Amino acid sequence: MNSLRFAVIGLGALGGYYGGLLAKSGREVHFLARSNCEAVAANGLRVDSTSGSFHLQRVNVYDRAEKMPKCDVALISLKATDNAALESILPHVLTESGTTLLIQNGLGQEERLPEVALQGSVYAGLGFICAHKAEHNRIIHEDYGTLRLAVYHEAGSAVRRHGGVEGLARELRDAGVDIELEPHFLAARWKKLVWNIPFNGLAVALRSNTAELLRDRNTSVLARQLMLEVIAAGRSVGCAIAGEYAQEMLDGTERMRPYFPSMYHDFEAGRALELEAMYWIPIQRARQAMPQVEMLARQLEYLAARRERDAC
Amino acid sequence: MNSLRFAVIGLGALGGYYGGLLAKSGREVHFLARSNCEAVAANGLRVDSTSGSFHLQRVNVYDRAEKMPKCDVALISLKATDNAALESILPHVLTESGTTLLIQNGLGQEERLPEVALQGSVYAGLGFICAHKAEHNRIIHEDYGTLRLAVYHEAGSAVRRHGGVEGLARELRDAGVDIELEPHFLAARWKKLVWNIPFNGLAVALRSNTAELLRDRNTSVLARQLMLEVIAAGRSVGCAIAGEYAQEMLDGTERMRPYFPSMYHDFEAGRALELEAMYWIPIQRARQAMPQVEMLARQLEYLAARRERDAC
Repeated sequence: MNSLRFAVIGLGALGGYYGGLLAKSGREVHFLARSNCEAVAANGLRVDSTSGSFHLQRVNVYDRAEKMPKCDVALISLKATDNAALESILPHVLTESGTTLLIQNGLGQEERLPEVALQGSVYAGLGFICAHKAEHNRIIHEDYGTLRLAVYHEAGSAVRRHGGVEGLARELRDAGVDIELEPHFLAARWKKLVWNIPFNGLAVALRSNTAELLRDRNTSVLARQLMLEVIAAGRSVGCAIAGEYAQEMLDGTERMRPYFPSMYHDFEAGRALELEAMYWIPIQRARQAMPQVEMLARQLEYLAARRERDAC
Repeated sequence: MNSLRFAVIGLGALGGYYGGLLAKSGREVHFLARSNCEAVAANGLRVDSTSGSFHLQRVNVYDRAEKMPKCDVALISLKATDNAALESILPHVLTESGTTLLIQNGLGQEERLPEVALQGSVYAGLGFICAHKAEHNRIIHEDYGTLRLAVYHEAGSAVRRHGGVEGLARELRDAGVDIELEPHFLAARWKKLVWNIPFNGLAVALRSNTAELLRDRNTSVLARQLMLEVIAAGRSVGCAIAGEYAQEMLDGTERMRPYFPSMYHDFEAGRALELEAMYWIPIQRARQAMPQVEMLARQLEYLAARRERDAC
């Protein structure tokens, strides 16, 4: 167990924070980075965290998967819009029957993983965390941090070798990651959407952070209505989510420092938005209409298309 | 009949265009203006219109209702947000049993008219027109122009004197206004909302004109969905509106020059938005939910409140 070797695919806020904790605790961690490979190789990785800042002087960081060693666990912290690249990345970094931990929001991405991942165990990692990448080699962890794990699919051979989701949870906990286990994969993903759909979308559409949205009566009602649509849609596909879950999420957000969700940063930086994973696939799979969620998705598509056009 | 005297309350795009046509045709018209009284008094009123431009050199324009003569017809072309002023204006300008023509969008405004108006006939005037006030004394009429009249309430004595809605229609037609009569008051108002609700709201929320909204697949779907919600809501209160009416409105808008609806101009200029008349009263009165319309209304409230705050 102690010899588990980790590959972290994508050195953004989540890869940097969770991968950084693993490396700090002495695990062997290999990072695949794109834009920021050189900066991290030269200056290490800095994590400014409310629960303890640290600086990793020397980081195993690569700009191409071909250069990486095979690892027992691939922690995927790309944006869902970049998942097509996994087809060529994972065969280089994942051992046979290796474990894949997909730390992404949205729905429908596990089933699209390349064959090499699906031969091993696949877990969903849902980061209830406020963090962003401030500079190439600096992650700012602002609040929260729990990673909820859910089993998408477990391969017997892998479970025998690494102890399944419990084994992975133990590894991560030992490294200082707050881990919770979610017993129901699909419910875990839908529950995460209950937060992501309103706050990511409204932040972009109205250019506002969580505090601004909750302080205003109209947008706080809207956030709740969107949450209730997502909860009802999740239930329509068999996920038991309590009605009070909306209030819980609102209360948690209320206690958060003012936060611009990831999609806001993506939009401002001109990056692709995770609209398919976070909006369209949930809309398609729900057995019940989500009119306000759909409206938000269409507004976001429009804004993203216009931004694209204006950039040309 | 030829001696009908008109008061035009509010010298914006609609008051200037319809009132301007009445004055141009030789009717006696008295305008109540606020910000632009002086400019119109000094330089007259210019209407640049696709159906024939004209310039009225001398205009009867007043900055206070107290200075105006009593008139047979009060054409109200204020924004609905300014209707509280009618309580003190109308007693000065309206003859006993005089006719009120309320050229405004939205719902629920006729019933709030002051007593003096409700003693006479009250008509709704629905302007299917693209026009805006470019300068203090210059109206630009860009497209369309039909004024649909509907009877809110007719007073017997007034009908005997002026011939009811047909008489008013004739007067306006003689002055060159394209008039259509709507047989059902409430349906007329809801039908107007079918256009106003999507295009005013989306124009503000997404800062876009009609052509931009219709060119994009997502926002054109959204415009249609909003229209269908309004049609269903109108039906829920007994207004027979055909399902094809949405397509008709979309086709008509498609043929229009790119147009920023009035609420867009109001928002940009920092003026109050007609949210109550155009969104909240329809939402309250519908016997059926309009989730997307409500979402749009809440977004608009949020944006308006933020603009207000930022301006302080």
